Amino acid sequence: MTKVSRFAPASPQSMPPISGVTLSTCAAGIKYTDRTDLLLARFVEGTTVAGVFTRSRCASAPVDWCREHLADGHARALVVNAGNANAFTGQRGADAARVTADIAADVAQCAPNEVFLASTGVIGEPLDPSHFADELRGLAHTQTQDGWADAAAAIMTTDTYPKMASRTVDLGDGVITLNGIAKGSGMIAPDMATMLAFVATDADVPAPLLQKLLSDATGPTFNAITVDSDTSTSDTLIAFATGQSAAAAIENDPTNPRAKVLAGALHDLLHDLALQTEQDGEGITKFVTIHITGAEDKSAADTIARSVANSPLVKTAIAGEDPNWGRIVMAVGKAGEKADRDKLSIRFGDVLVAAEGERHADYREEHGAAVMKHDEIVISVDVGIGRGTATVYTCDLTHDYVSINADYRS
Amino acid sequence: MTKVSRFAPASPQSMPPISGVTLSTCAAGIKYTDRTDLLLARFVEGTTVAGVFTRSRCASAPVDWCREHLADGHARALVVNAGNANAFTGQRGADAARVTADIAADVAQCAPNEVFLASTGVIGEPLDPSHFADELRGLAHTQTQDGWADAAAAIMTTDTYPKMASRTVDLGDGVITLNGIAKGSGMIAPDMATMLAFVATDADVPAPLLQKLLSDATGPTFNAITVDSDTSTSDTLIAFATGQSAAAAIENDPTNPRAKVLAGALHDLLHDLALQTEQDGEGITKFVTIHITGAEDKSAADTIARSVANSPLVKTAIAGEDPNWGRIVMAVGKAGEKADRDKLSIRFGDVLVAAEGERHADYREEHGAAVMKHDEIVISVDVGIGRGTATVYTCDLTHDYVSINADYRS
Repeated sequence: MTKVSRFAPASPQSMPPISGVTLSTCAAGIKYTDRTDLLLARFVEGTTVAGVFTRSRCASAPVDWCREHLADGHARALVVNAGNANAFTGQRGADAARVTADIAADVAQCAPNEVFLASTGVIGEPLDPSHFADELRGLAHTQTQDGWADAAAAIMTTDTYPKMASRTVDLGDGVITLNGIAKGSGMIAPDMATMLAFVATDADVPAPLLQKLLSDATGPTFNAITVDSDTSTSDTLIAFATGQSAAAAIENDPTNPRAKVLAGALHDLLHDLALQTEQDGEGITKFVTIHITGAEDKSAADTIARSVANSPLVKTAIAGEDPNWGRIVMAVGKAGEKADRDKLSIRFGDVLVAAEGERHADYREEHGAAVMKHDEIVISVDVGIGRGTATVYTCDLTHDYVSINADYRS
Repeated sequence: MTKVSRFAPASPQSMPPISGVTLSTCAAGIKYTDRTDLLLARFVEGTTVAGVFTRSRCASAPVDWCREHLADGHARALVVNAGNANAFTGQRGADAARVTADIAADVAQCAPNEVFLASTGVIGEPLDPSHFADELRGLAHTQTQDGWADAAAAIMTTDTYPKMASRTVDLGDGVITLNGIAKGSGMIAPDMATMLAFVATDADVPAPLLQKLLSDATGPTFNAITVDSDTSTSDTLIAFATGQSAAAAIENDPTNPRAKVLAGALHDLLHDLALQTEQDGEGITKFVTIHITGAEDKSAADTIARSVANSPLVKTAIAGEDPNWGRIVMAVGKAGEKADRDKLSIRFGDVLVAAEGERHADYREEHGAAVMKHDEIVISVDVGIGRGTATVYTCDLTHDYVSINADYRS
């Protein structure tokens, strides 16, 4: 039994209803035997949809399905199962996705191309929808507006806590609400989105604008976290907008002030969910922010930040509460981006460890060691040659990470 | 106390003398208190030299020193210390390298620019040569042609066994011998060479030819291994040719048949040392060969092979003897190279696991599980779209890796 991450919220965020959205979950026994693993969400007619997906060249069948049907811009239902990713399952996988969408379309009284799908769990195992068809049909009868916390729980795999967040903002002529749920703990180095995340709002948003705002918000949120540098076949982030709030429709123009209010709330929500995902990283004991400044440009800063954030030697040093800043030097050096060893400076928290290519004269090991004892650690590197900055969130690499992943399927 | 890798040679290779080379070691107490940590090798006048070094942007002071003096193509001495990498040590580090070379030049009766240096150990700690100056001078009096095994032991850090290899080949007009030693266990993803490796031969080889052969041989040997994807600041591979064998000088032309004999022996020697380094990977219990075929080109194959070889989820699955081929799919997918999910096939050893985008009909989990129980595992992926091939050697990611690296400096 894996212990719950020390970063789990003390009490789960209360999730208000989103007008136009109902949800229900059940235990369909797809892989797990003692918990819910199937979610059906329904959306009112007129709901717009946007999504971002894994850049994996081996994307799952549900990712293929969603990509294909996103162009229409309309959604009426979402089906998510945990325990089986329906990835690398060939034609059978595509068939399973279609059959699942057909059943959901039947119960939601919509067209199959208005049904969105996501699956998470083991890769390569065929997913047989006949095994949960009855359960899926049954979910039509238990739909509730208050099902958000149950939905967040039903989509978990190795997660140790459900991830949810909600934001409410005033558009001037009316208040809108955004709810989001996410899952993910390992195989987290999203390259468009994270494992699975779903957002719904009652705002009235044209699909193209929703897509633009969602895509823009992904970079500094889900694409800025890494647990183990491994990108999933199933990364999926979908947003739904029901248009049921009292606020008027938002013009299809990202420069419009009301669109900017929505963009801010969406960014804030996704950032919250992304950090919750990172903070449930498999085996995590330390939540670490890598902050790079002074790189040649934004892209170089990002590459350097990821080189540090994904280094097994940096991550194990952090697990051991070892202020081993030499490994930060190593990770900057191996990133391949422009760097001048003799201009580099490094801080652990507020402690200046190294500057101008060597250990700072005032630095004392015990000062660095004190920072490393905290649960949350900020490591700042100034490359000293330009103005590029980046922030990436990571965690330590612990014995529990190895235990969880050496035993995952057994 | 770390246990010795299960892949340690049953008995160390016997190392013949190389005419023109003498060696000696001592315990200078640079960091370790109970073992040798300082090596002095001397080379006869006329010895040529070639080297390849880390591509890290934060290279160590000894790497800077060697690069600067390699152009002359002549070597008379080599000094290596373990316990301190003299990396990220600023001007003091450069001064320490120069002082060390001056002392060695004095005892070896040569110019400082004929002295080559390498340091391995903790990064960022100043190295004070006055602490081992007397010991270094003393090494002048204990030089022996039979010091190769002691030399291999003196340069170790977290290595659990010394790495050495020897090859003898006939050039037609005389036999030449090549000896090599290497160290390295963690921070192994060489990007030119490995942590430290040194080769000496009694062949008579012009420096430019030696450099060409050494550079050519690095790709499929040291640059084809990875323990943890972390590239060192100190990667150094230096070859010395004393010209003391009975065989005539080798013409400075890599297409010459005698140069090709030398190239073959050098490749073979480096491959042996590289695999010994991999097989002492920190915490290793499985030695894994990743073999990629059918990629778009050589470079794509290499990227995919490294993506699989460095994936924490693949490596922990192997540690758990779990034939979790879905994670191979994940790692191919995230590599970013051209791939068609529906043409991919995967083998564990001889067992065909997946073909044409899904699990093979004949595959049984117990067949894959049986392969995973072996100490040595070959994972083959055919991408199915081109003719690019690559082979990369890796190991599993175990609890011992975390233990070793969470405690390294404490």
